[in-house]
Amino acid sequence: MPHYNPPIRDIKFVLHELLGVGEQYALMEKYKDFSEETFGLIVEEAAKFAQEVVQPLNQVGDAKGCARSSTGEVTTPDGFRQAYQLYVQGGWPSLACDSAYGGQDLPKLANSVLYEMLNAANQAWTMYPGLSHGAYECIHAHGTEEQKNIYLPKLVSGHWTGTMCLTESHCGTDLGLLKTRAEDVGGGQFSLYGTKIFISSGEHDLAENIVHLVLARLPGAPKGTKGISLFIVPKFTLDQAGKLGERNKLSCGSLEHKMGIHANATCVMNFDGAIGTLLGEPNKGLQAMFVMMNAARLGVGMQSLGLTDVAYQNSAKYAKERHQMRSLKGSQKSDSPADPIIVHPDVRRMLLTQRAYAEGGRAFSYYVALLIDTEQCHPDEDTRGDAAELVTLLTPIIKAFLTDNAFMSCNEGLQVFGGHGYITEWGMEQFVRDSRINMIYEGTNTVQALDLLGRKVLRDMGKSLKKFGRQIQEFIEEEGVRKEMSEFIDPLADLASKVEKLTQEIGMKAMMNADEVGAAATPYLRILGHLIYAYLFAKMGKIALKELKSGDDFYKAKLATARFYFARLLPETSTLIKLARAGSSNLMALDAELF
Amino acid sequence: MPHYNPPIRDIKFVLHELLGVGEQYALMEKYKDFSEETFGLIVEEAAKFAQEVVQPLNQVGDAKGCARSSTGEVTTPDGFRQAYQLYVQGGWPSLACDSAYGGQDLPKLANSVLYEMLNAANQAWTMYPGLSHGAYECIHAHGTEEQKNIYLPKLVSGHWTGTMCLTESHCGTDLGLLKTRAEDVGGGQFSLYGTKIFISSGEHDLAENIVHLVLARLPGAPKGTKGISLFIVPKFTLDQAGKLGERNKLSCGSLEHKMGIHANATCVMNFDGAIGTLLGEPNKGLQAMFVMMNAARLGVGMQSLGLTDVAYQNSAKYAKERHQMRSLKGSQKSDSPADPIIVHPDVRRMLLTQRAYAEGGRAFSYYVALLIDTEQCHPDEDTRGDAAELVTLLTPIIKAFLTDNAFMSCNEGLQVFGGHGYITEWGMEQFVRDSRINMIYEGTNTVQALDLLGRKVLRDMGKSLKKFGRQIQEFIEEEGVRKEMSEFIDPLADLASKVEKLTQEIGMKAMMNADEVGAAATPYLRILGHLIYAYLFAKMGKIALKELKSGDDFYKAKLATARFYFARLLPETSTLIKLARAGSSNLMALDAELF
Repeated sequence: MPHYNPPIRDIKFVLHELLGVGEQYALMEKYKDFSEETFGLIVEEAAKFAQEVVQPLNQVGDAKGCARSSTGEVTTPDGFRQAYQLYVQGGWPSLACDSAYGGQDLPKLANSVLYEMLNAANQAWTMYPGLSHGAYECIHAHGTEEQKNIYLPKLVSGHWTGTMCLTESHCGTDLGLLKTRAEDVGGGQFSLYGTKIFISSGEHDLAENIVHLVLARLPGAPKGTKGISLFIVPKFTLDQAGKLGERNKLSCGSLEHKMGIHANATCVMNFDGAIGTLLGEPNKGLQAMFVMMNAARLGVGMQSLGLTDVAYQNSAKYAKERHQMRSLKGSQKSDSPADPIIVHPDVRRMLLTQRAYAEGGRAFSYYVALLIDTEQCHPDEDTRGDAAELVTLLTPIIKAFLTDNAFMSCNEGLQVFGGHGYITEWGMEQFVRDSRINMIYEGTNTVQALDLLGRKVLRDMGKSLKKFGRQIQEFIEEEGVRKEMSEFIDPLADLASKVEKLTQEIGMKAMMNADEVGAAATPYLRILGHLIYAYLFAKMGKIALKELKSGDDFYKAKLATARFYFARLLPETSTLIKLARAGSSNLMALDAELF
Repeated sequence: MPHYNPPIRDIKFVLHELLGVGEQYALMEKYKDFSEETFGLIVEEAAKFAQEVVQPLNQVGDAKGCARSSTGEVTTPDGFRQAYQLYVQGGWPSLACDSAYGGQDLPKLANSVLYEMLNAANQAWTMYPGLSHGAYECIHAHGTEEQKNIYLPKLVSGHWTGTMCLTESHCGTDLGLLKTRAEDVGGGQFSLYGTKIFISSGEHDLAENIVHLVLARLPGAPKGTKGISLFIVPKFTLDQAGKLGERNKLSCGSLEHKMGIHANATCVMNFDGAIGTLLGEPNKGLQAMFVMMNAARLGVGMQSLGLTDVAYQNSAKYAKERHQMRSLKGSQKSDSPADPIIVHPDVRRMLLTQRAYAEGGRAFSYYVALLIDTEQCHPDEDTRGDAAELVTLLTPIIKAFLTDNAFMSCNEGLQVFGGHGYITEWGMEQFVRDSRINMIYEGTNTVQALDLLGRKVLRDMGKSLKKFGRQIQEFIEEEGVRKEMSEFIDPLADLASKVEKLTQEIGMKAMMNADEVGAAATPYLRILGHLIYAYLFAKMGKIALKELKSGDDFYKAKLATARFYFARLLPETSTLIKLARAGSSNLMALDAELF
């Protein structure tokens, strides 16, 4: 059975040594009293909850899955409900929520740290509370006072959970095609009709109500994405005071059988005249939903970070314990009939790949979470604006780069176990199966890549990217003079300059032929991911080099991981740059019918 | 539900246009009457059997899996037994077997073609007959006349199946640690005691007897791999005439729960004094078993080739049928509310990756199967020797390169389906799960890489590799003068020259530090894989260029796939060469306890 040890010191390293969050939050009125000590306490309590309450349910949840009764009620696996009650009692849902609605007014970053650990412990369970936070943010941003007063306190306390109802069987990526319709029934109420699929946590027994945010069309609405409105549709109807009434006319039609996240209820949801209210402006539902979607994309990044780390921990443990063959250099443990497999360079390559992607992913996603706090709470308007711009730029990279890396890492972890990795009992194959969905939902990784290159980079002529590039350039200039940093700075500077040229080149080609964007987007996103990781690993390497003299092995390991990253993961960019430049003709030459 | 259309024309293209098998077999006495027409009939009949009998059982087999009774009897999923009976009745097990034992004396290559299609249709089912052929080869090579007369006719007819019993819970890669013991009980018989795990098809209801080839130690045998003997241990004991007697003292202790290949019974096998006979010399069991192991490694390649192709077929179909969003260049199908997703460059990248790996894998594995026939039946001794050398060199590449590529390809196929790819019903996630084991069993891909670089390349100072290199060089020199071939020949020549230098460099480093072999092996194997694919795609490109004027779209598609391979898959070597040269220090720096 797999284990999980929350990486508390690694988390604190990123928070305090890499990002210097204390200094940052001291500038923000809202968080100025949020000390390193408070943060530490939260990390430790969250770690305990993830490790002791949530993790033990992961494997049994996968084995058992959810069950749906003939009337559409959904039962989650044994223990899920009790764990959720403890979660609510512990006040965890309210961490980063507005105190006006019962929240604790803590930074978003605190929530990211919590979610890394919850997801490492149990992604399927964490998806139940995970979507509530997105619903909270969407209603907080777009709701009327009445909607906020009814829904937010319950979402903040965790007594109710939330969902996103977007996909229909004929449309996922292309929401402009959606058919679910809403009829105005007067009194500010609407009646919804239609069927949604792939609704995570769509129906379950954890909370007393479920708040569905549903995309639908009003009568006479324009075709396509400009005619989509957003509705709040609760599982149980509410009176004006927010008291629970009768069951709304919506139900779970069936549960999907799927590759992984078995313990999360992926529902077909039927809306048969379900009553709801409009959230935000008519026909502007997709924009409103993007608040939730962006939160969800960052959330998917945290899912993948968690899985990367837990898979690493388990394969590292196995590699130290499993004795098999001798080192290529001759016996290392002559008192044993074989050496532990961690003596083998190729086993270490697999382990270090996982480790580097865990450390890089943590640095990157915490960095972006801090940017979100900066965007919302920094006293300086320009700083807020710059942060907002960067969050927009980096969100698709978080989503796609972390999820691709997690799937690779979980697979390396499985491979370290050899045949045992394929056997359910050891838990490694579940990590692979669970991590696979993250590359798909909340916008496939192709959609992320097109969003990045098309919308976030080329549309503003690379303006945001250049701004981020300047930040990297400053670091290069500062550190480039120090000889001991050249192992990190030289490849970073090299890649930064290549990215600049590459972006221009693709921009020029895209003006002649829009397919050039599609042909370059996926490798381009990974190149930017590596640029960011190279920047962050150079920074972490700098800290490690400085602290090495303390004799603390922690820094020795940080340095070795950074060096591994530069030696063995960053070189992927050699190929990626070729692919990003390879053009569309080799993809488009073949007639569709010849496939 | 997924479909499978056996790619008959693609198969014949490789057999006749690429490999010119007719000309080859005309030289071999044993196969000289084996005409293109006969081969064609076999391909078509095998295709029908795979598509109509075996494929329909794939998804139901996955859902149901095998069941074990309290007494250790194993039931395969509904329909498996009937399909196996039809397989036996059709004479398929005997295809490439010796006519002295009832076989059809057909080339090994015919068997490879059959197995590509059976595996594409249903890998789990195909594993039942699949291992029998290895057992047949091992007994054929090492058995006494009596053993051959008893076992071979039954394995050839398919009335009995075979297994390989190697792994124990504490040893998979490191068979030198195995503990199962054999006691001489007189009369040429031995009694076996021990527990084997991960025994594919270890117990089932398809055949009247199961022939276990079991590795065990004789009393007083030397420690390690030099003290391992091989035994034939049947499920039902046999009298001297080969008549079935009583149940032998061996049983299936449990079935493993695993990620995929659910319909194949992966058994824990308990030997509690089971009676068997020695196969080959005492203490030379591992060498004898390698006959079966090498056959199995090539067999795993065919499993992965099959899955690559069937996943491709299904995702290509979906991409043509699924309408979602518009082309980046604007609407392509204005009569429909959206364009088919095959208009998108990145979807085509995924499809063409699968397609190129299917075509490359087919060309490569058929080429090696033809080499095996050449090794065994060519009239010229030197030619036989060269072929044997090449088969030895290429076997680990077939195993690791095809299985890694298949897993990537099945994942690309799943991704093309978006959220639907994650749902069991569509069948794509089963291909991913099934294909994952191929990277592990019959020697993990790390073991293959070490075998290739350490044993097959460096041990003989690159002699076999140079011989293969000369063959490529001749092709380069012949075709290099033709301008229209330069798009293929230039990158092929470039890679061939890099491989030569790289091999020398690693050889030098390995003399100083054995860990350099382990640090370079995995990327090195993929580089050789690409060298071979570049060679074969250049040859296929040449044929396609020549036949293009016929106006047959088949060649247009072949050319487009070859061009895609050179533009988008071969560039992986830029990174791989860096990794193969990156050295061991970045892997070995971190103390094991700091992982």
